[in-house]
Amino acid sequence: MTELLAYFKQELPKINGFLDEETDKLEGLVKGVAKHVLLAPGKRIRPILTILSARSLGYSKEDIYPLASALELLHAATLLHDDILDDADLRRGVTASHLVFGTTETILAGDVLLALANLIGADYGKSRISSILASAIMSTADGEIREIAHISEPKVDRAVYMDIIIGKTARLIEASCRIGASVASDSAELEDALGNFGLNMGIAFQLVDDALDYESPVGDTGKPEGGDLKEGKITLPLIFYLEMLDGKEAELLLSEIKNRTLTDAKRDEVLESIRAQGLGTKTRESAAAYIEKAKDCLTPLSDSVERRILKQAADFVLTRSK
Amino acid sequence: MTELLAYFKQELPKINGFLDEETDKLEGLVKGVAKHVLLAPGKRIRPILTILSARSLGYSKEDIYPLASALELLHAATLLHDDILDDADLRRGVTASHLVFGTTETILAGDVLLALANLIGADYGKSRISSILASAIMSTADGEIREIAHISEPKVDRAVYMDIIIGKTARLIEASCRIGASVASDSAELEDALGNFGLNMGIAFQLVDDALDYESPVGDTGKPEGGDLKEGKITLPLIFYLEMLDGKEAELLLSEIKNRTLTDAKRDEVLESIRAQGLGTKTRESAAAYIEKAKDCLTPLSDSVERRILKQAADFVLTRSK
Repeated sequence: MTELLAYFKQELPKINGFLDEETDKLEGLVKGVAKHVLLAPGKRIRPILTILSARSLGYSKEDIYPLASALELLHAATLLHDDILDDADLRRGVTASHLVFGTTETILAGDVLLALANLIGADYGKSRISSILASAIMSTADGEIREIAHISEPKVDRAVYMDIIIGKTARLIEASCRIGASVASDSAELEDALGNFGLNMGIAFQLVDDALDYESPVGDTGKPEGGDLKEGKITLPLIFYLEMLDGKEAELLLSEIKNRTLTDAKRDEVLESIRAQGLGTKTRESAAAYIEKAKDCLTPLSDSVERRILKQAADFVLTRSK
Repeated sequence: MTELLAYFKQELPKINGFLDEETDKLEGLVKGVAKHVLLAPGKRIRPILTILSARSLGYSKEDIYPLASALELLHAATLLHDDILDDADLRRGVTASHLVFGTTETILAGDVLLALANLIGADYGKSRISSILASAIMSTADGEIREIAHISEPKVDRAVYMDIIIGKTARLIEASCRIGASVASDSAELEDALGNFGLNMGIAFQLVDDALDYESPVGDTGKPEGGDLKEGKITLPLIFYLEMLDGKEAELLLSEIKNRTLTDAKRDEVLESIRAQGLGTKTRESAAAYIEKAKDCLTPLSDSVERRILKQAADFVLTRSK
């Protein structure tokens, strides 16, 4: 794990430097929004994955940093639009942009960051890169659409839940790896290996995120505890819980969540019960299986420092507590 | 002009057919929004320009239709987001999407249509196409940003006005032509010729639009008469008017527009005065000069039916009354 941390330490300044430069060039109205979302504490996991993926296939050029940063721009853009859709209060521990800068500025900043990411991607002269970026944007929006639809018609259905988290989170992490692979090599096999690594890691990433929502108090994740339950999102810890209730009780709870009639007392009871029964831990176990899958995907790659660090990055997903 | 109309009649069903098919494939939550904005009466001027540009350089393949339609998808995406920003009531003569379907659905539909346009563009395997699309999205957002900033700090400044209309309208029309050129040819000279044709035509297009806002009653343009004045947009007819007032009067009117304190009576007076002094017509004269410039840009192209129709399309911009 120390290798991974050293890698982050070495690469983060170059990513942050590029993001800083690019946001400095933006128009006044959106510059503040872009800086607010991009300079808030973030793990930069997507750009790091792009760099590692490219380097693991022998790509040594310095021009990887703008491309890697494009993934962070794209991620930030989706955060901005999602926060408006979810009407979130907090993002990365700070007040959500639309509440600081206004909805208009936030929609536009999202559009500008999306365009900037596409513009950077197109500069590499490989249409495959533009194609991966566009697919990722589409999948992310699709995931958000499914999630919103699911909030208005919640069901206890693991397949629906998986579709949602693959769309809203895993596809962009997959794309981060695919893009690193595609700039380094024209091999579809290697791109798929790294892409599937990213997909499985991304699923695990969201599973851990959903577990954390039932585990951590405000300030730790930067999101309120039990926020998903409050927003009516049916995530895996809650699905485990609902599956343990008898049919009538489950139906009642689901309808209270749907209709936003859940009392504070009952919400606390659900949160406490999920904690007491270790359903967050059970969710992390499910994540661990995806991490094993992810690491197996790297078999077709020759051994390298970066392949080793990619595996460490996958393991890191499981240990994070915020 | 009959050649142009015949061309529209011949090509529109193929564009509309493709748009219909693509929107049918979208998720439920955004499908309605996409159909609402895409199937409302529209001129499809952007796809037609892409087709004409490609054909004028000898490109005869049938695969031009998805690419041409991508420009309409992109345009529709910007309309959806802009209507939220402007809090518009009407679009293309029908109720604006966010008022019918909700803001969440409309933001997401915009994101999906943008992604779809990029996805289609990337499929042609030419990174130049992705690059032009991304630049156009960026410029359009920039134009909107400048316009919003200008509404909160309005000035009587033709250069600022030109920057705004180039960004929010002309760049996407330029892109429509550039993309047609770039799929047909690798010549930068020919792409620039068609691109500059589009840019100048796009400027004229917006000038005529801004003139129409002071000329037509509701129902004709699908927008309320004097809507720009109401929304605090300082367009060319109003700039002409403000330039004719003495300094103090102009300042007072500008501050009333800025602070939304313009009385209905005074607004009617301004509208009447702009009409009586023919400032809409004067704006159209300015548009006519850009149309001449646009047509001159086509000189490097060999003569063809399509080059002739492109010139007719430019002239058509001047004559439209809605």
